[in-house]
Amino acid sequence: MFISQLQKKIELKHSRLCVGLDPRYEWLPDEITRPFVKKYGETLKAAARAITQFHKEVIDSIHTFIPIIKPQSAYFEQYGPAGAQALLDTIAYAKQKDVFVLLDAKRGDIDSTANAYANAYLGTTCIGNLRKKAYDVDALTINPFLGKDTLQSFITVATQYGKGIFILVKTSNPGSGDFQNARIDTQTVSEQIAHYINSVAQQTRKDNPYADIGAVVGATYPDDAKRLRILMPNSFLLIPGYGAQGGSFDVLHHFFQKNGNGAIVNASRSVVYAYMKKKDIDFRSAIVQECQKTISDINTALDVK
Amino acid sequence: MFISQLQKKIELKHSRLCVGLDPRYEWLPDEITRPFVKKYGETLKAAARAITQFHKEVIDSIHTFIPIIKPQSAYFEQYGPAGAQALLDTIAYAKQKDVFVLLDAKRGDIDSTANAYANAYLGTTCIGNLRKKAYDVDALTINPFLGKDTLQSFITVATQYGKGIFILVKTSNPGSGDFQNARIDTQTVSEQIAHYINSVAQQTRKDNPYADIGAVVGATYPDDAKRLRILMPNSFLLIPGYGAQGGSFDVLHHFFQKNGNGAIVNASRSVVYAYMKKKDIDFRSAIVQECQKTISDINTALDVK
Repeated sequence: MFISQLQKKIELKHSRLCVGLDPRYEWLPDEITRPFVKKYGETLKAAARAITQFHKEVIDSIHTFIPIIKPQSAYFEQYGPAGAQALLDTIAYAKQKDVFVLLDAKRGDIDSTANAYANAYLGTTCIGNLRKKAYDVDALTINPFLGKDTLQSFITVATQYGKGIFILVKTSNPGSGDFQNARIDTQTVSEQIAHYINSVAQQTRKDNPYADIGAVVGATYPDDAKRLRILMPNSFLLIPGYGAQGGSFDVLHHFFQKNGNGAIVNASRSVVYAYMKKKDIDFRSAIVQECQKTISDINTALDVK
Repeated sequence: MFISQLQKKIELKHSRLCVGLDPRYEWLPDEITRPFVKKYGETLKAAARAITQFHKEVIDSIHTFIPIIKPQSAYFEQYGPAGAQALLDTIAYAKQKDVFVLLDAKRGDIDSTANAYANAYLGTTCIGNLRKKAYDVDALTINPFLGKDTLQSFITVATQYGKGIFILVKTSNPGSGDFQNARIDTQTVSEQIAHYINSVAQQTRKDNPYADIGAVVGATYPDDAKRLRILMPNSFLLIPGYGAQGGSFDVLHHFFQKNGNGAIVNASRSVVYAYMKKKDIDFRSAIVQECQKTISDINTALDVK
């Protein structure tokens, strides 16, 4: 259900871009931080409130261009419980502006602990006879290291609530091969996870072209992407690693299907902090310019213009 | 620095038990939850406040017997930002009562994102010219799936602040072999991680018998533990999986060294929710009884009485 709706948003906005939110207080424009520091001093609370305000401005600027945003949990956790509140407020604001929220938290744990993570982000938490939504994002990234049995809770909760998950298959960092390229018989760990994702996708997608269970495949490994794309024909890929990490748009077609569907490309700092390289213009305009350019570069690379 | 101090606490309290905090509102005693529900209704906030109060009672009951507690982040995250506050308050209370805090969050991510997680839990967050502690635990569990390069930030921050990390090597769940037993040449992924931990331990431990970089090895895999124990002679093992998960005290000696050092055993629900099986006595007494019994069972199994 999540992926069908994401596909509609992608078509409507003609945009395969996911904008990542990696908030760092020291990167925020002065005009955003000043009133909060004045009110709360140089505190975690001031930083967290400024981050929320900044994200509202970012979302206001680009919500008509992008189908989905990807807050990175680590950057919010840095600001303590105030950071958790900033995450919640950012999520709520994006959803209000018709933008999906994919939380990049790479959670993974065993049985009832995995279930607690799934409930926290995709499902509900029991309080007496009530069921409350804690963070309520549309999709979550998952770390599969603990084993296939530990993925089941995430799949069950996602299916029950019509949410999405993206399981790490091949990450974008230089050392991703250390353990992801280890072998089980003739297959790599990445390939084994891809097979698993595909088997779940086939069981759960019904008549939809794509299942709600997708994969993370780093932009920096286009040759791996070629093989992995074929192994998961009915799963969306989330592609991190463009820009700063060295991924190139030239090889983007390895990650998508021939019709230009089946993946979203993430760009974080290059879009959201574009104003740091363009100090002469308003930060909102810099974000809009870079966002539109990135969307257009992706569409051109895929020849879907 | 963390491990030397932990070793001292272990000797002083004659206890190798780490008590895990996996809070679930529905498991809390009525006498704890009632006043908060009365004040805040059946809300995430009421649940989170009740959890903090319950943990204060748990810590008051057992702080003289145990060197370290292990809050599991997932269970706090279920309660939203109020849950983050409950985690922070639980951490602060434990430290005030001279109990170390190992946060079980199994975080892992690439470069600057890993650094953000390390700062959130082990280091500090920059706010202007100030450095603020967000959660400030004594040690953190880490998921190594993304590769060795992604562990460096955690090691650097831990070393800088005198904190500890426990990297997942072999987890306790039935499916842990799916990817952890994959092979790189002749070694399993678990063995490779163990070698890496040992190489860092040798570089960082100076003259101490144990380094601040340790490993998680599940109680349910004693044969793996035998080999892994030998590969990491200067690292502490955190051993989850006793009780409900089926680990047995009979094989505990595979995880420790001959002198009875080098590991801590985690027990969570069997201790903290002991009163659910002993409804006729006060919950505090049930916790104390079960805690003392578990400490004694461990010491007996290791013949360190």
